[in-house]
Amino acid sequence: MKVVALAGGVGGAKLADGLAQVLPPEDLTIIVNTGDDFEHFGLTICPDLDTVCYTLAGLANPQTGWGRVGETQQAMSSVEVLGGPTWFWLGDRDLGTHLERTRRLRAGDTLSAITADFCRAWGIRARVLPMSDQPVRTFVQTNEGELAFQEYFVARRCEPAVSSFRFDGVEQARPAPGVLDAVAAADLMVVCPSNPWVSVAPILAVPGLQAALAAKPIVAVSPIIGGQALKGPAAKMFSELGILPSALAVAQHYGGLLRGFVFDEVDAAHSEAIAALGIMPLVTATVMKDRTDRAQLASEVLAFSSQLLAA
Amino acid sequence: MKVVALAGGVGGAKLADGLAQVLPPEDLTIIVNTGDDFEHFGLTICPDLDTVCYTLAGLANPQTGWGRVGETQQAMSSVEVLGGPTWFWLGDRDLGTHLERTRRLRAGDTLSAITADFCRAWGIRARVLPMSDQPVRTFVQTNEGELAFQEYFVARRCEPAVSSFRFDGVEQARPAPGVLDAVAAADLMVVCPSNPWVSVAPILAVPGLQAALAAKPIVAVSPIIGGQALKGPAAKMFSELGILPSALAVAQHYGGLLRGFVFDEVDAAHSEAIAALGIMPLVTATVMKDRTDRAQLASEVLAFSSQLLAA
Repeated sequence: MKVVALAGGVGGAKLADGLAQVLPPEDLTIIVNTGDDFEHFGLTICPDLDTVCYTLAGLANPQTGWGRVGETQQAMSSVEVLGGPTWFWLGDRDLGTHLERTRRLRAGDTLSAITADFCRAWGIRARVLPMSDQPVRTFVQTNEGELAFQEYFVARRCEPAVSSFRFDGVEQARPAPGVLDAVAAADLMVVCPSNPWVSVAPILAVPGLQAALAAKPIVAVSPIIGGQALKGPAAKMFSELGILPSALAVAQHYGGLLRGFVFDEVDAAHSEAIAALGIMPLVTATVMKDRTDRAQLASEVLAFSSQLLAA
Repeated sequence: MKVVALAGGVGGAKLADGLAQVLPPEDLTIIVNTGDDFEHFGLTICPDLDTVCYTLAGLANPQTGWGRVGETQQAMSSVEVLGGPTWFWLGDRDLGTHLERTRRLRAGDTLSAITADFCRAWGIRARVLPMSDQPVRTFVQTNEGELAFQEYFVARRCEPAVSSFRFDGVEQARPAPGVLDAVAAADLMVVCPSNPWVSVAPILAVPGLQAALAAKPIVAVSPIIGGQALKGPAAKMFSELGILPSALAVAQHYGGLLRGFVFDEVDAAHSEAIAALGIMPLVTATVMKDRTDRAQLASEVLAFSSQLLAA
């Protein structure tokens, strides 16, 4: 079964790692949100791409989910002494990634080519594609005005109340090379448990993606468990947008796109309402505490999807 | 006595530190070469400015003379894994300097304003000025064609034979704010033992500098000792330009600019020839092995210069 996963940050990276553990590498493509990307200190930083790649490579910090394991912080300490901004913390090893990516982008290489080379160097065998080689930048409309995503997410710790989102540049963006072919060849699309508003929506907004997906069976995994997001502002965003955050709300949000929806046991009560949307529900343990949990959830998603496809 | 020193890399930084040890901070301005500056990984790197500042702040690596003491190399190790260029080695703490400088340059701050703030943060009390806020980039004409300075100096380890030098952008450059005022107010100019061709020449090439200096008593310290440079390609450059490298050759190179010339005891035999140029010679121990040596040489240069000025 050829699988294409859509992923954003930490939760998405974990399921992507689970899929990479249970699928042959040639059968898995992971399309990653780049709406979080930004320029900082003159460097191009791609937080979601790095989180996915570090997680797949076993380089991610297990405590935070983002950043690298065994990280040091000499560079940022030095920035701090100079009175520079430290709101976006860059570890020393992580900095090497941003330095080399920035160097290659300035030399004219595409983000997808750079990502492919980085994956090879890190021993990642599944294919990881940025959603686009053209810059797309997420802006968040809030009660304090429009904020660039990382300003909202990291500098302001998601405190301002959101009202809408804008994916700057997305109209001019094209799917990265390989994205449409991977979707066309896919037997199954998996929407990872990533933030629907700022991780998955930018991917779906890339021109051509929605149309390509329309023909495909899509299964999503809920990022909302018991009304909360394990990480990040997804639940808070649903609330601020006037929607009670729940697994059901996520299913309703994706709506007609989905054939199946996987959500946690604590939300089992939503099963009937989700089935009533014409979406097949799968209730299971969705919290991924370790690598084994990731593989377990990935296996269940694939088994459930096989049944769906056969039905 | 108000002193303005012209300095480039490691040797110049050492004498600048000696002067800073023996002069009240308000009486010392150090004008630093920026012709070595370059862009790497998207960052603006100013090797001579950093060497001077790290040395004055006691942050310099005593083994190399450049870079920072107690440095780590996580970022570059990470670049190396990705197959990126490691010919210009950037330590993690040092990277913090380049990150914050680049951030501020992109925000529109001038190099001189940034340098002043960095000096304050590092506890440097003497005034350190880049020669110009406009970018000047040294290119070296060699038997292998024209090379950007760091390509020649670091990547090619000064191996190609030089034939001439070009300071790209210098015609459009203006002395950084404070440079001409400092020179006008100076009782004495000291040319530090820096490479005459690629450390001092770019400073002298900034429009207005030569004219300002013409009226001032200038004393230089030889970077050539016993026909060799302690560090760097100065002696090799003299040879390749057809000049026998010696303290005398340095004195002849600066020629009419100088009132006095300080050179090492091993070159005492050149005294008469230097005096015959109309330049007062001072023969002394010029090798600076530790901080005490720096202060000692600085004191001798100042005592010698006082005699010259009184004469």
